[in-house]
Order: sequence, then C-alpha cells, then structure tokens
Amino acid sequence: MVFTLSKIDSRTKARTGTLQTDHGTIETPVFMPVGTLGTVKAVQQDELTDKIDAPVILGNTYHLYLRPGCDIISGAGGLHQFMNWDRPILTDSGGYQVYSLSDNRELTEEGARFKSHHDGSEHLFSPENVVKIQRILGSDIMMILDECPPYPCDKDYAKESMELTHRWAERGKKAFLDTEPLYGHKQFQFGIVQGGTYKDLRKESAQFMADQGFDGIAIGGLSVGEPTGLMYEMTDHNTDDLPRDKPRYLMGVGKPANLLHCVARGIDMFDCVLPTRNARNGQLFTRQGIININNAKWKNHHQHFDPDFPSDLCQKYTMAYIHHLFRNNEILGLQLATLHNLTFYLWLMREMRRRIQKNTFSEWYENYAEQVDQKI
Amino acid sequence: MVFTLSKIDSRTKARTGTLQTDHGTIETPVFMPVGTLGTVKAVQQDELTDKIDAPVILGNTYHLYLRPGCDIISGAGGLHQFMNWDRPILTDSGGYQVYSLSDNRELTEEGARFKSHHDGSEHLFSPENVVKIQRILGSDIMMILDECPPYPCDKDYAKESMELTHRWAERGKKAFLDTEPLYGHKQFQFGIVQGGTYKDLRKESAQFMADQGFDGIAIGGLSVGEPTGLMYEMTDHNTDDLPRDKPRYLMGVGKPANLLHCVARGIDMFDCVLPTRNARNGQLFTRQGIININNAKWKNHHQHFDPDFPSDLCQKYTMAYIHHLFRNNEILGLQLATLHNLTFYLWLMREMRRRIQKNTFSEWYENYAEQVDQKI
Repeated sequence: MVFTLSKIDSRTKARTGTLQTDHGTIETPVFMPVGTLGTVKAVQQDELTDKIDAPVILGNTYHLYLRPGCDIISGAGGLHQFMNWDRPILTDSGGYQVYSLSDNRELTEEGARFKSHHDGSEHLFSPENVVKIQRILGSDIMMILDECPPYPCDKDYAKESMELTHRWAERGKKAFLDTEPLYGHKQFQFGIVQGGTYKDLRKESAQFMADQGFDGIAIGGLSVGEPTGLMYEMTDHNTDDLPRDKPRYLMGVGKPANLLHCVARGIDMFDCVLPTRNARNGQLFTRQGIININNAKWKNHHQHFDPDFPSDLCQKYTMAYIHHLFRNNEILGLQLATLHNLTFYLWLMREMRRRIQKNTFSEWYENYAEQVDQKI
Repeated sequence: MVFTLSKIDSRTKARTGTLQTDHGTIETPVFMPVGTLGTVKAVQQDELTDKIDAPVILGNTYHLYLRPGCDIISGAGGLHQFMNWDRPILTDSGGYQVYSLSDNRELTEEGARFKSHHDGSEHLFSPENVVKIQRILGSDIMMILDECPPYPCDKDYAKESMELTHRWAERGKKAFLDTEPLYGHKQFQFGIVQGGTYKDLRKESAQFMADQGFDGIAIGGLSVGEPTGLMYEMTDHNTDDLPRDKPRYLMGVGKPANLLHCVARGIDMFDCVLPTRNARNGQLFTRQGIININNAKWKNHHQHFDPDFPSDLCQKYTMAYIHHLFRNNEILGLQLATLHNLTFYLWLMREMRRRIQKNTFSEWYENYAEQVDQKI
C-alpha cells in the first residue's frame, strides 16, 4: 500500500498523508462513514460523493456476511458493484460485532463461533475465512480477525486475549498472502493492536503488529466503555510504537472532540456510527455544539441554524421545519440530519488537514479542542 | 386563474393546457405528488424539482392544521416558506380526511366537528375557516369544504350530502371573496362536484359548481370503493357538464391505468398517495407493469430493471441491491423506490401531454391502455 506522509505538525503528533487504492486516493486524516449493510443509512450514493465528498466508506463484514450473504455479493461482482460505489471501501473483520453478541458467541483457538442475530443459525469466523469473506466483498482495505476484550478486564485476560489476537494475526496474514483478489483491484490488510488498557501490553501489541508487515495498523479495543482520558492516553501511547510510514486507524471513534484529540495524537483514520445513528435520533453536530432538534425550543425557530455551513439542513431549511419533520417521524428529517452530520464530520477532517498543511494545527487545536470539549 | 387550453384530442376528451400561478406555470394533464405534512415522504425538495420535475405538489390541510399548526406555518410566512418549496402548492380542504375519521367526526350544517387522531382534541372545520386556514397555508390553489359520502350510499343520503356540499360551496366562495391572500401571491379556489354514483345528482352538482365561478372544479367522492368501471363512467359523465375553459381535477386518483383512462375522459389534474405509499411497501410502477421488490425472485437479479428509464433506481442500482435494501428495512430503499415511482408517474403524464400535442394520443391510448389495464 502506498501511504505517503506529506506533513507532520510541529508541536503535536498530527500528520497529513495520502493513501492510494485502486478506487482512488484517500487524504488523511480521514473519517469513514459507516455503511453497515452496503448503504450509509438514509444517504444516496451520489450524495456521498457529490454532497458529502466521502473519500472512503466502511462496510461491516459480520452484517454483510449474514445479509445479503457471500453468494449474492459474489454474484454481483463484489460490494462495490453491488452497491454502485466506486470509491474505496474498508471492511472490518466482524470481530467487534461478534464480541458484541456476548452470550451468543464462543471463542476458541480456531476462531469465533457465533449465532446469527437474525435467525440463531451457527457460524464460525476464523482468521482464515474472514480473509476469504473479505476477498469476496472485495474491499480495498480488510481487517484481521481480532478479539476485543471488554472494559474493565483484568490483566491476565487482557494478556491472553492479546496473545490470541496475535496468533490470529499471523494466521490472517498467511491467509492473505495465500489468496488473491477476485475482482482485479488490489486489496490491503491491516493488523489490529489490542492489550486492554495496560500500557505494557499495548506496547507489546503495537510492536508485534508493526513487525508483521501489515499495510496499515489499527488500534482496537478502545471506546468500549473506558473513560475518555484513558482512551486518549492509550492512543497516544500506541502511536509512539507504530511505524511512522504506515496509516494508523483508531477503530470505532468517535465524537468530534475525540477526532480532534486523536488526530493530535497521530491517528490517520477513523470510523464511527455516531454521526449517522445520532442523526436519526435528532442529534445534530454543529460548529456551535451538539443540538437536539427534538427540543421544543426549535418549534418556532424560523431561522437557518448556521447559514454559512455547507449542509442542506443549514442552508435550505429552518430549524422549525426540521423540528416538525422529527416530531412527525418524517423520513426527510432522517435524510437531512444524516447528510448534515456527515457533512460536519467531513468538514472537521478537512479543516484539520488544511491546518496541519499550513502548520497552524497546534495553535488552532489548543483553542478549538477546549471549546469542543465543552460542547461536543 | 389563467387556464389556457392548448390542444384537445380528436377522438377522446383528452386535452393539454397550462395553469398559471404566481409560483409558476403548470402544464396539464398533471399529477401532483402528495406532501401530506409539508414533505413528500422520503424525497428532498431539490429532488422534487431536479430529479422528478414535479410542477406542483399537494398539502393536506387537515394534517397541517394539526401539525405543525397554523401558528407555526404563519410564523414561517406560509407553507412555501416553511418547507422551502417555491413551486405551486394545492391544498385540500380537509373534508376527505375528516370523512375518513368516521366515528370521530360529526357533520352539522355548521361544518364538520372532529377529534384529532393525535390527541383526541376537538376541532371544527367550517366552509369559512378552511378558507382562513388555507389563507394561512398560502397554497396557490385551495379547495372548498365538501362532504364525501361513502360507497355504496343510498340516493337520499347522496342527495342530502350533495346539497350540504352545495350550501357549503356557496359559503366557502363568499369566505374566499371576503378574505385576502396573506403573502403577496394570488390564491385560487376550486369547487368540488359530489353526488355519489347517481348520474342525475352528479349532473346537478357539476352544473351547480360550474355556475359558482370557481377557478377550477374537482370531481370528488370517487375512488372510495366503487368499481373502477363506475369511477370511469362517473368521471366521463361529469366532464360533459364541466366548463371547457376551467381545469378539472379528479381527487385521489389513482393507479397509472386510471390516469390514462381519466385523461382520455377529460381530466387535467390528479393526486394520489399510491406512488409514494406503495413505494414504501416495495411496490414499483414500471413500463413493464407493477413489481414487488420484496419478491424472492429479485434476490439474485444483478441487472438494472429498465436501464433506459430515467430513475436512479433503474439506472444506478440492480434489483438484487434494491431487494436487499427492502429486506433489511434500509431507508435508502424507501428513498429510491419513492423517487422511482414519482418519476414514473410524472413520465406517464409527460408522455400523455406529448401525445395529445402531437395528435397521437388516442391511437396510443387505445393500445397502451389495454396493456396497462392488464398490468397496472
């Protein structure tokens, strides 16, 4: 994978770069909208390109494997063809979703055995077959199978779990090398650092993943319930041991403030369901903070919220109208709020990239991060 | 109201014309997408203009009066401003919705007293206050309050009901003349013909409404359960007695085949929830007939359904993908299906206008109507 660093901030660990894939170049730091089932909920594909300008989206292997299933995706010629999306796709390995099934999964050396949340049918994700499944999906970037320990968890469990993830990483790497892409475009594979919230384990895991020669490395197992400060601390600690010339992806993070703090700690890639899921609950991320559109105070607010902000919600509609849509469960409310929140996330990343490039990031970060901490 | 007839078909009663409003000119025959609560469900306003090219939409007075209510719409400066729509809007009078409340409404000479379906609160729609409410909504075309008798209904009831509608029409007309538009653009008022399925009553009602000098005349009380043939017969009968130089609006109709048959019987305007509501259930109207996307036969159908048809659903996505979206209750499915069905309805109207203009309507109608009768 060609990852090119273009700038490193002078005071923080923030950096800009480009990630080249056969479906296009991704400028980092980047936020990847989550398209669980081959659709970013409530957003059309041409809106993702034309309105939000998302350079890459994420698909969930666990969900796509169950529905529509590998046969259908294979018949379509891969996920890009299936969903008519020709920019890059990253797929997770399903490890986190299986971890979330708690009572309906069992971990063994072989892999993760689980019951489908749809029909209770039994399935196995192994380090090898999640590579095979992601070959069928045809994502540009695939993830290894990992185990995500809960928070809190004792050190013995965190260590055992990390070691299992390491053995799975080696098997996953081998499976990747033993197989070929199916659709003519290159695929890359990322490792995942684990180790709970134990600094020595985190360090060991980062060094282990760095040694495997993955195309990029993710930090996993964070944002699972630990205090935000601890998440920042672990991220900061981990990026010290990750190779400078490989993209670093902080999985499942986060709120806008988290993105700021973690870009400053050297992260290049993020994904999170927050902007899309919370949009559907009426929570809007804005430059003025988080807003809940369901609040009665918007009922008679016949102004545009932030008319200079480049989302349709801000520029075309009043808060009273959006409030009315949510109050009446109108689909248009979900559409406009989702478009807005993703526009906000992508705008924030663009702002950070611009400032890192101009060498004004650290100054802005020090001022702006405090503001957003209070609000978002 | 300036309604200009441009062409009348040589063999059928089909006609083309233009309706001029301060929000733009409407070419007829026209289909008006239903935007019950100030939104055509699952469609953005710029898609209504740019993708569907809907020249006019419909709003429901009953629903808008309850939510967001007249205060909010008034505060916004009317429905156009509230929903950011600058093309024409037609609003019904709420008569039909109140009729649908059955047990929760009571008709008196004064008007229709009803209980809100939201909270059971009591309200009155009178011929006078529905004019006042529609002044606040600021629709380009408003409807009089009418009573819609059920089907079947005995002749005595149909006659009494029609006579009530006539007395209400006179009061509504007076209220219209006694009030002024609130937002600087002209408003027009349409009468509504009733009379059940009794030809003599229908004739009497058509002549009565013609005599009142309304800007246009609607045919009401059809498509409420009577056989389709009877609906065509009543429509055909009514248009014989309606003024040639006024627009004729068949309320709440219908399926694509109904539109064809009723254009041939001299109707200029239609509205119906079918294309939007049925889209949300997975029913697609196409040139090849009605399709249910939930049918398992589409699961592995990796082709575009009708790649020459100008909807995103047809041109950008495969049937397998749309099937997957519906199977998983993805909002994108509702969006694409709604856009498609409205595109189909508007395409059908455009085709009819084109053929009437070119004097090829009757020939096409005779062939195509038979096909669509079998399919849609």
